[in-house]
Amino acid sequence: MLLICINFQSLIATKANRISRAAGDAVVMEFGARRAQGPDAAVWGTRACFIGGVETTATVMADQQFGVTAVGTMAHSWVEFFPSEYESFKAYAEIYPDNSVLLIDTFDILESGLPNAIKVAHEVLEPMGKRLKGVRIDSGDLAYFSKEIRKRLDAEGLQDCSVVVSNSVDEYLIDSLNKQGAKINSYGVGERMITSKSDPVFGGVYKLAAVKEGDKFVPKIKVSENVEKITNPGKKNVYRIYSKKTGYAIADLLTLADEEPDFSDSYPFVDPVKPWKNMKFRNIEAKPLQVTIFKDGEYVYEQPTLKEIQAFVKNQLKNEIWEEEQRFYNPHTHFLDLSQKLYDTKKELLGGIEVVD
Amino acid sequence: MLLICINFQSLIATKANRISRAAGDAVVMEFGARRAQGPDAAVWGTRACFIGGVETTATVMADQQFGVTAVGTMAHSWVEFFPSEYESFKAYAEIYPDNSVLLIDTFDILESGLPNAIKVAHEVLEPMGKRLKGVRIDSGDLAYFSKEIRKRLDAEGLQDCSVVVSNSVDEYLIDSLNKQGAKINSYGVGERMITSKSDPVFGGVYKLAAVKEGDKFVPKIKVSENVEKITNPGKKNVYRIYSKKTGYAIADLLTLADEEPDFSDSYPFVDPVKPWKNMKFRNIEAKPLQVTIFKDGEYVYEQPTLKEIQAFVKNQLKNEIWEEEQRFYNPHTHFLDLSQKLYDTKKELLGGIEVVD
Repeated sequence: MLLICINFQSLIATKANRISRAAGDAVVMEFGARRAQGPDAAVWGTRACFIGGVETTATVMADQQFGVTAVGTMAHSWVEFFPSEYESFKAYAEIYPDNSVLLIDTFDILESGLPNAIKVAHEVLEPMGKRLKGVRIDSGDLAYFSKEIRKRLDAEGLQDCSVVVSNSVDEYLIDSLNKQGAKINSYGVGERMITSKSDPVFGGVYKLAAVKEGDKFVPKIKVSENVEKITNPGKKNVYRIYSKKTGYAIADLLTLADEEPDFSDSYPFVDPVKPWKNMKFRNIEAKPLQVTIFKDGEYVYEQPTLKEIQAFVKNQLKNEIWEEEQRFYNPHTHFLDLSQKLYDTKKELLGGIEVVD
Repeated sequence: MLLICINFQSLIATKANRISRAAGDAVVMEFGARRAQGPDAAVWGTRACFIGGVETTATVMADQQFGVTAVGTMAHSWVEFFPSEYESFKAYAEIYPDNSVLLIDTFDILESGLPNAIKVAHEVLEPMGKRLKGVRIDSGDLAYFSKEIRKRLDAEGLQDCSVVVSNSVDEYLIDSLNKQGAKINSYGVGERMITSKSDPVFGGVYKLAAVKEGDKFVPKIKVSENVEKITNPGKKNVYRIYSKKTGYAIADLLTLADEEPDFSDSYPFVDPVKPWKNMKFRNIEAKPLQVTIFKDGEYVYEQPTLKEIQAFVKNQLKNEIWEEEQRFYNPHTHFLDLSQKLYDTKKELLGGIEVVD
């Protein structure tokens, strides 16, 4: 259960963050419930999306349970239900005069949907002193149509009307739309975010690191034919190492729990991928990353609000983590280094296994 | 909620079926809970895996709730916990003498894990009149190691000891292992099945097809710039069309609900992708696919058992659906054809939309 919760929610928060960063100032709305891998995935996935930077959701239960603001536009069935598209828009605008986002691609975007939406803005909303909030398209070429729609809305004095798009949106499509000068104020993001379609598995594992014997933790290791499956043995601490010069994180550092590393001058460490290198941290600050959640069987953690978690993520990625590590294509590695003592323990445990060829 | 349930469970049953078919006579065990996209996904996903052809699971709650037999082998932590691998195997065999599947890749498969497992088979289990049930590897090259392990087990008189493998298994890897002559009795399949990693989204939608006015259903359509998003209008029936000669399904056929198609001689239909072709079904049998679940607000369906659903899927794919449509690479299309009347209705509704260029 621990792995299910941590793996899935970390996955979705990460994917949502990538999409939110690609969108920049445009708003990202979570639209994925129907494609989520189960009802939990829809609701807890939305919470994770919010942590990653998404603002609103079409999953009403996520509003009820976690306070992620529920929003929505009409469905195609609303439009189809009425004798004509215009009547469907009119009825909607009369019910939701402050909140009308009209779906304009049920029949033909530029020749039917958009003209009908503009007509409703002028003939239904404006006489009530209201403005058309937005129009949405869910098909067609989003770059071409968004630019065309923006032009025509502006020409009609509807500069404050948002262009909302959906349909297979993810960070890669948003990047590409941005390059083509698409005029999009808001993205409805569905299946590619709520399932992390491009990479739907977050591979966190749970391994035995040490066994307590009396007061002592005896380190344990799992070897493997696959190097990345070899564990780091022992009870450990983890620090994030910041450059005093830039303020950005250089690496994370694992030490054994009984070490008291002195970072004041220069601190020698081991890069486990290139252990032959003679490496030292200099002019750094080290921040312990572990936080006590349970102590002596009691829950001692003061949980931040969801908004605080979202702000924490945003601030951390903006001010502490190199942009190069956040690139969508071929990002730079976030290094995980070992203390000399931890590396020696690992080597010793690995050396204790006799392999006869 | 309807779409969440139908989309996700159809997805996983389909993926599990592909993996089960690839495995042939080898047993497939569901091992994916920790990577499932939420607790529901783990438990209901396991039910879907069973429907697809998987026999057993490591998700205990799926046994409790649905009767999918829970199985398991030891974890690496079990092995690490003991002072030596041999002692860990011995302790396990003494507790589960009828059910010992030993995990032999914690340190070194051929030089440590396998010799220790063989020793336990001879020195611990055989004196009790018991047999070693299996050995499992979770890393390394599964083709090479499975063949090597099989050879050594056989040489030790342990022909009845199963070789169980896990690690990134899916239908493609199984296919490839089969080609290389791997000797595998049982697959533990995790993340690639429970998330359908190769394609984690099943795109079922829910669209308005008709509106009831009095006793009449008025057909409705959703047009789209994307042809595959255009709906088939009206209240409909769906039939599966079988060749009397082969017994296999030729296509599915959509008609309007008020049609009474006569399949006794030749039946003309429209292929919506190539509507200009003059197509007829001849010498066929047609089976209505719709089943009434609710009638006048009452649940009137008699639900089959989970085993019956599994058998239904297996029988259908074996005896009714062409192998060519079940191929993993570039499968043949399962055609969905339309009655002339439905096609005419669609054309009429599409023609009613005026598009000015």
